[in-house]
Amino acid sequence: MSDAITLTSDALQDRVVAILSKAGFNAQQGAAIARVIVAGERDACKSHGIYRIEGILRAVKAGKARPDAVPVLEQQGDGSAIVRVDAKSGFSNAAFELGVPVLAERARRFGIAALAINDCTHFAALWPEVEALTDRGLAAFAMCPSYSTVAPAGGTAPLLGTNPLAFGWPRLDGPPYVFDFATSVAARGEIELHRRAGTPLPEGWAIDADGQPTTDPEAALAGAMLPFGGHKGSAIGTMIELLAGVMIGDFTSREALDHLGTTAFAPRHGELIVAFSPEAFAAGRPGNPLVRAEALFEAIAGQGARLPSQRRFAARARAEKDGIQLTSEEIGKLDRLLELGLDAVA
Amino acid sequence: MSDAITLTSDALQDRVVAILSKAGFNAQQGAAIARVIVAGERDACKSHGIYRIEGILRAVKAGKARPDAVPVLEQQGDGSAIVRVDAKSGFSNAAFELGVPVLAERARRFGIAALAINDCTHFAALWPEVEALTDRGLAAFAMCPSYSTVAPAGGTAPLLGTNPLAFGWPRLDGPPYVFDFATSVAARGEIELHRRAGTPLPEGWAIDADGQPTTDPEAALAGAMLPFGGHKGSAIGTMIELLAGVMIGDFTSREALDHLGTTAFAPRHGELIVAFSPEAFAAGRPGNPLVRAEALFEAIAGQGARLPSQRRFAARARAEKDGIQLTSEEIGKLDRLLELGLDAVA
Repeated sequence: MSDAITLTSDALQDRVVAILSKAGFNAQQGAAIARVIVAGERDACKSHGIYRIEGILRAVKAGKARPDAVPVLEQQGDGSAIVRVDAKSGFSNAAFELGVPVLAERARRFGIAALAINDCTHFAALWPEVEALTDRGLAAFAMCPSYSTVAPAGGTAPLLGTNPLAFGWPRLDGPPYVFDFATSVAARGEIELHRRAGTPLPEGWAIDADGQPTTDPEAALAGAMLPFGGHKGSAIGTMIELLAGVMIGDFTSREALDHLGTTAFAPRHGELIVAFSPEAFAAGRPGNPLVRAEALFEAIAGQGARLPSQRRFAARARAEKDGIQLTSEEIGKLDRLLELGLDAVA
Repeated sequence: MSDAITLTSDALQDRVVAILSKAGFNAQQGAAIARVIVAGERDACKSHGIYRIEGILRAVKAGKARPDAVPVLEQQGDGSAIVRVDAKSGFSNAAFELGVPVLAERARRFGIAALAINDCTHFAALWPEVEALTDRGLAAFAMCPSYSTVAPAGGTAPLLGTNPLAFGWPRLDGPPYVFDFATSVAARGEIELHRRAGTPLPEGWAIDADGQPTTDPEAALAGAMLPFGGHKGSAIGTMIELLAGVMIGDFTSREALDHLGTTAFAPRHGELIVAFSPEAFAAGRPGNPLVRAEALFEAIAGQGARLPSQRRFAARARAEKDGIQLTSEEIGKLDRLLELGLDAVA
């Protein structure tokens, strides 16, 4: 990148916070959103980096999300292992940050605990959330519905969301074991990329509006995506609708789509995070679980299989050493967003 | 079945209990094992029915499992959401039955709770366990390692197990929403069936001992099975090794294979069950989660997609009405097992 400009994480955080502040976000919302955007750039996850800012501003401008929301921790009583945060129509990020210390405390106290976030707009990857728990020495998974764009296995029409599932396990040295993936074969953005490039989709990604298999991106976008792994992935996607939608008293993917009537904005729904204390689960049993897990990771990597998130962690290590690189075009866009605020978006 | 013999569930339970008693099982082990075997026959899950008895006897005869084990409930303190049962080298079933009422009570009290079973021999499907929780109005998942016969995605050698994952959600009327599947593409038994039939495997099921894709069942059995859904299924299989092996202080699939040195017996390891109280999670939120879930199930079935376990529930309904049908050959085998006890097996 001949025109690359290098920033520290802190400098990029300040820039994103300034943009969001100018657009009417309160400090709590702005800082939390900026943290996951900076983490995305730091980890070379461009799809969850500064690219997201315009979508966030559009959701606010259209009145779909509140930039001034103050999430509320709704204790289910001190004796409950469920922590609930009402995001009050703000973004998920500030709600998560409010809930995570309480979730961690409950997970340590009870061995296992859950955080339910309600009434949030959600644009972020789930890996920053499971990593917030692995950073605290806990294992965790996170899941949420999205928009009904995926047909159940054997079905003909969109119903399930791309429903991401993420899991994290703390490692003794270096970054955690983390995976974070959609329960559809492909992300909707990947189909969109094929459409723009005019290339056919791989077989098995999608069906058309008549429920027939298709490799035509246009037909796929008018039809439905397919779950990963056939009926097994479909079952996991359904489980996510149940646990992270219905059970926590929030929207399923279909209800989320009905609510906004379009996939043009980030969906509004809830989210479920479950945290486990390996220390509590292993108590009284032989061996330290964190040490024993390393043997499993070594056996995976030792046979040439890649642990998930390694590309991301390598980018992170580079960014921590050398800073985050943005192009001059990207910097120009940040400047424009700062200048124009909500006027920068349609 | 011209030679079909019809039994009630109770009559079959008595027969299986008598066989196990004769073979030296105590009443607690025998009744619990018989219940899951009868449930398998009732649901036309022949692979988990009376077919399993010989394997159970072989494990005992070889000294791999204790028929007289008395599982012990190890309370982690009354304030913990973790319930632990030490199976004391017996089978998983009696240990699960001992733990499940406590798990249910904790899940209701804390909203979420977990049951860790340690030091058990495991031959059973996981659906009887998640159904024991849906019967109590709880949602639940269950998972366990098995034997390292599955290569991680991108790898070349067996490491992960076929690691089953089951999930259940209680329904208002009729049987629950339940899935229970291996995280490998296919079960090892399916590859064995292809070997016996001399038919090639479908592509993508397995690799040979050199780590190359194969459709030859012999080569596959000497090599490794593949996880379902590529790197996503591989990640879920790894998560199961971590949570239901390492975290609960019990064997991973590799350690389980190292321990016995053969896959000829049911594996010895632990198991993790997590139970959720939908009532507690939905408290204060609009709508009854059990009612809302029905809309999701109707939307799945309404587009012609099958809910999991329907074939099993249909068989159950038939058995509850007409009894369980066994062939005269199967009855003969039960008679022989009762007569000979452990002498019936090698």
